[in-house]
Amino acid sequence: MSKLTDVPKRILIGRALRSDRLGETLLPKRVALPVFASDPLSSVAYAPGEVLLVLSIAGLSAYHFSPWIAVAVVVLMFTVVASYRQNVREYPSGGGDYEVANTNLGPKAGLTVASALLVDYVLTVAVSISSGIENLGSAVPFVVENKVACAIGVIVLLTLMNLRGVKESGTLFAIPTYVFVAGVFTMIAWGAFREVVLGDDMRAPTADFEIKPEHPGLAGFALVFLLLRAFSSGCAALTGVEAISNGVPAFRKPKSRNAATTLAMMGLLAVTMFCGIIALAAATDVRMAENPAKDLMHDGAPLGAGYVQDPVISQVAEAVFGHGSFLFVILAAATALVLFLAANTAYNGFPLLGSILAQDRYLPRQLHTRGDRLAFSNGIVLLAGAAGLLVGIYGADSTRLIQLYIVGVFVSFTLSQIGMVRHWNRLLATERDQAKRRHMVRSRGINTFGAFFTGLVLVVVLVTKFTHGAWVALLGMCIFYATMTAIRKHYDRVAEEIAAPDASADDMVRPSRVHSVVLISKIHRPALRALGYAKLMRSDSLEALSVNVDAADTRALREEWERRGIDVPLKVLDSPYREVTRPVIDYVKSLRKESPRDVVSVIIPEYVVGHWYEHVLHNQSALRLKGRLLFTPGVMVTSVPYQLQSSEAARKRARKRQNWVAPGSVRRGPAERAKDSSSHT
Amino acid sequence: MSKLTDVPKRILIGRALRSDRLGETLLPKRVALPVFASDPLSSVAYAPGEVLLVLSIAGLSAYHFSPWIAVAVVVLMFTVVASYRQNVREYPSGGGDYEVANTNLGPKAGLTVASALLVDYVLTVAVSISSGIENLGSAVPFVVENKVACAIGVIVLLTLMNLRGVKESGTLFAIPTYVFVAGVFTMIAWGAFREVVLGDDMRAPTADFEIKPEHPGLAGFALVFLLLRAFSSGCAALTGVEAISNGVPAFRKPKSRNAATTLAMMGLLAVTMFCGIIALAAATDVRMAENPAKDLMHDGAPLGAGYVQDPVISQVAEAVFGHGSFLFVILAAATALVLFLAANTAYNGFPLLGSILAQDRYLPRQLHTRGDRLAFSNGIVLLAGAAGLLVGIYGADSTRLIQLYIVGVFVSFTLSQIGMVRHWNRLLATERDQAKRRHMVRSRGINTFGAFFTGLVLVVVLVTKFTHGAWVALLGMCIFYATMTAIRKHYDRVAEEIAAPDASADDMVRPSRVHSVVLISKIHRPALRALGYAKLMRSDSLEALSVNVDAADTRALREEWERRGIDVPLKVLDSPYREVTRPVIDYVKSLRKESPRDVVSVIIPEYVVGHWYEHVLHNQSALRLKGRLLFTPGVMVTSVPYQLQSSEAARKRARKRQNWVAPGSVRRGPAERAKDSSSHT
Repeated sequence: MSKLTDVPKRILIGRALRSDRLGETLLPKRVALPVFASDPLSSVAYAPGEVLLVLSIAGLSAYHFSPWIAVAVVVLMFTVVASYRQNVREYPSGGGDYEVANTNLGPKAGLTVASALLVDYVLTVAVSISSGIENLGSAVPFVVENKVACAIGVIVLLTLMNLRGVKESGTLFAIPTYVFVAGVFTMIAWGAFREVVLGDDMRAPTADFEIKPEHPGLAGFALVFLLLRAFSSGCAALTGVEAISNGVPAFRKPKSRNAATTLAMMGLLAVTMFCGIIALAAATDVRMAENPAKDLMHDGAPLGAGYVQDPVISQVAEAVFGHGSFLFVILAAATALVLFLAANTAYNGFPLLGSILAQDRYLPRQLHTRGDRLAFSNGIVLLAGAAGLLVGIYGADSTRLIQLYIVGVFVSFTLSQIGMVRHWNRLLATERDQAKRRHMVRSRGINTFGAFFTGLVLVVVLVTKFTHGAWVALLGMCIFYATMTAIRKHYDRVAEEIAAPDASADDMVRPSRVHSVVLISKIHRPALRALGYAKLMRSDSLEALSVNVDAADTRALREEWERRGIDVPLKVLDSPYREVTRPVIDYVKSLRKESPRDVVSVIIPEYVVGHWYEHVLHNQSALRLKGRLLFTPGVMVTSVPYQLQSSEAARKRARKRQNWVAPGSVRRGPAERAKDSSSHT
Repeated sequence: MSKLTDVPKRILIGRALRSDRLGETLLPKRVALPVFASDPLSSVAYAPGEVLLVLSIAGLSAYHFSPWIAVAVVVLMFTVVASYRQNVREYPSGGGDYEVANTNLGPKAGLTVASALLVDYVLTVAVSISSGIENLGSAVPFVVENKVACAIGVIVLLTLMNLRGVKESGTLFAIPTYVFVAGVFTMIAWGAFREVVLGDDMRAPTADFEIKPEHPGLAGFALVFLLLRAFSSGCAALTGVEAISNGVPAFRKPKSRNAATTLAMMGLLAVTMFCGIIALAAATDVRMAENPAKDLMHDGAPLGAGYVQDPVISQVAEAVFGHGSFLFVILAAATALVLFLAANTAYNGFPLLGSILAQDRYLPRQLHTRGDRLAFSNGIVLLAGAAGLLVGIYGADSTRLIQLYIVGVFVSFTLSQIGMVRHWNRLLATERDQAKRRHMVRSRGINTFGAFFTGLVLVVVLVTKFTHGAWVALLGMCIFYATMTAIRKHYDRVAEEIAAPDASADDMVRPSRVHSVVLISKIHRPALRALGYAKLMRSDSLEALSVNVDAADTRALREEWERRGIDVPLKVLDSPYREVTRPVIDYVKSLRKESPRDVVSVIIPEYVVGHWYEHVLHNQSALRLKGRLLFTPGVMVTSVPYQLQSSEAARKRARKRQNWVAPGSVRRGPAERAKDSSSHT
């Protein structure tokens, strides 16, 4: 199966670039930060803009609420970071939110978190790439003019890279991330300097526009609702915080502490950048609207469909550094790159989460294998397909995609924090050491506040965004949940069916004798080899079996059989329709009927070929026969392979593909050595 | 492989309708005629029109050449029928033109004929269905307004019918064919009666139109060329004549004589109908043009793009029976139905020819199996796809498709007749009986004339139609030829590679011992069964092998192994990356290195499941491991199946699918019993 479906992929993707296996390298903090933080840090590229966008609905006057919303986001960020510092200490295995929820709240909660995260990975790709394209577009107009095509192009590129198995290197992440962070800080510092010290009048390119409020003079409940919606949008800055909790094993020792420190650093950076950008946007009079074509006006006239609204970060950069200046272009490029790296994070996380879920039998078992290329490939293609679909449907518009985004994150935040509270409760029930108890109570307090706050945000997000698109994310979660439940049920049912009887194995009806049958179509090397092997097996009886598809061939076979003096009896079956399968099946069944306690061993010579098209030309009858024989009880089917010369090509290919590097191997950390070692019992 | 790819087909197509196998029924002449003649007879529905169309290029005055062209077609038809009466007598096995060319002119000629016939089958479907749609459209305007969609619809319908395996019954063919023949004869008789006896002025619906000649006053060489082109188009009436030569085994005895008689009857019917329609068209002043929108004028103005040119047969029927009259509608329906049956003929012929070619290893071997559903299905889908593509490209316009059509037929006519001449020469070289010699010389004369005439027509067709589309058909032939040559070469190369050494089989290096390894992941019924079977095989050594994917699971396995006191040593391999394949392969290789003359028998417990989606959930690791093990020399791989309850569903499905009736079984005749019967040597 795998061979054929894999071919188109292989043609397109080629061989793995790197042949060195994932080393046993662990990440120092300065590398871990960019590896894990590209996702959360990059969200400051779009989160501030989303806040302004929503506020604009109530008109320009609502913009003065933006600092308050920034404060709320900062508080939330600190809460979440503080909470997750508990998580990484208590659950350092890399199972993340799924493990926390599963362990403390049961499999249903775990599965809910898992579904939420899977949806989230899809949206991370869609949102990050769309936003990256928009940022790139602020410097290169062509890109934004062909938004959807460019976004799909980037998705395809990332997909191919991950399918090839490009080794994720710390440096690859470090440079753009640090350039991005440095760029944003330079912008904030320089902007503050110009504003405060020089007293420059920095003006964003949109500073002269007026906003036509959709709902002017909003007040009371409606205003509160709008502010909550703006806050929800600002929460986009929190997406990706949980990534570190999945990556603890990749840190240098002391793993948990280093992870916690990195988490704190990341939170601090994100918050500073978020607030700085909001402040600069206010200082430079950035104007953004949900429907810029309609609601942004210049000299009393709407800007019209041709207007492209640049992201807030690029508008601010333009105001601070000047349009087209070197620093402006660098920052735009770094922003886009960091956003694409954030998307790449999802390419790594999706199959990793898949392998954890496979371990719990919520997904096909083979996904469990670490670095199984085929399993990973399927995950990557699924992720890319879903993200591409969303990008296509939503026109690569990050603002519309963000509506779907935050639900999943906060579902997993909330459940994970509730799980942590339970975790502490459980520990407190047995812990007697007062110092430790105090510590636990404090940690529980943090997680309780985290659970409460993130739960509140979840409700707010659900209420304010449900009709704007959150329902799509919920639907996606339900689909994942239902599929995984069904798979688990199936595995459970099968496990029950095949469970070994409780008494000793001798209770089973033991077959008494083996009757071996070697299938022969002609006397050639594969057939002779199969005969030779069959003789070695010393079964109770052995015969060669041929199907009379062509009378002349059968006569020739008989004659050569005699001539060579082969000491195995040759049985020939009639086949009026030139079929092979049916006569053999019928014959095997008749053998079983004669002596039901015997086992029939059918030995089939098989050609091993090197190219997929050769599969079409060989072994088809053998394959079909094998498939049918397996349905017959009391039969075992043995393939005796004969390697044709062309099989050498396939062997070489397989050897090369063994060295494939699974996406996300760096952030997953080195494999733990299995605790039991190779030995005989 | 077959399982998964088959699923979409199975969902769409369902189970075979009929469960009774092809009976040992032979066809009486009155049934054989419609079964085999629907294709050649139906071509009179479009051939006469094509003649008029081409003549119209030189203007209305050229129409008076139409009787002469009819005469030429009649002479050609008699020649071809007389020639093929020799073929069916000398080659009654059903191999048809391919066999004649292959036997007498060598494999290259045979393959050329085969390629020509394969292209021809595709075109039979495309042309017949397009023409059928046009005929139906003359009674039901909706059909002709959605020509391409309707034609594709009919192709899909026929494809599904043939994939399901609807049993071809004589009656199914007899009724529409006889209604069609009777209808056309009634039309001719009634038309002649009205014209000659009643002296009615029958006028076709197009009788009042003028024709604007594209090349008025054509004369000399140009006129001859045009007449030859018109004749080429008229030759479309001959397509399908060769069908009977493939169907001799289906006739009642004396097979060859009955086939020859049927051939003569068919020729007579076709010729009479062809001439009758041409005559009536002349009598009722039918006007047809290659570009009716431009070249047909009414009251001096062109008819314009909205005009739909009805087929000549329906125009004549309208003139004779009256528009919308009962007989007119019946004839239109019968014509369309016969044309669709003609298309169905190709659905039967294509896989049949494929199985003959597979016998000579020009196509994948499994196609050889008579009634192999999967093999047939692939052929049918290929045929339908190619025909659908042509219909799409050429807008279901029978006139444009016919340009491609006739090349293939005449390639096979010509080569087959040349082959027959060689055949007689060979026989004459040894035959001494004067009466027989006289007979042979006469037959050779017929075939020589046939070869000469059809060869001439082939040249004419190539010259007059090459740029009009014949090149497409030639290209198709080249593609088939190249593919089949490559396949044959591959099989030959492999056959050489695997040929058994000429000395006695004992020359081969014999392995000395078998080391058996049972793969165990958990102790469950499938594993216990595999262990039990492995013990029965009494190999020289036996051990159980497990891969330590999860330390806890491995410990549990070890404990249970002890507890149950299983008397097979358990070996556990380490796997840092949770892989299964690589450690096992490495271990097996190390065993082989230790004792290179030993054979390693790897025994894998396998789940047998009933649904395709279960395949995704089970056996994936086993399958991959098996695939990789086969590349390792000195290894045999044994599957010990464990039938899960759900496998019952698949078994039932397989049993039902056994009873599938292969398309074309009626025209292929009953299977010959293989001459050697079931026995032991």
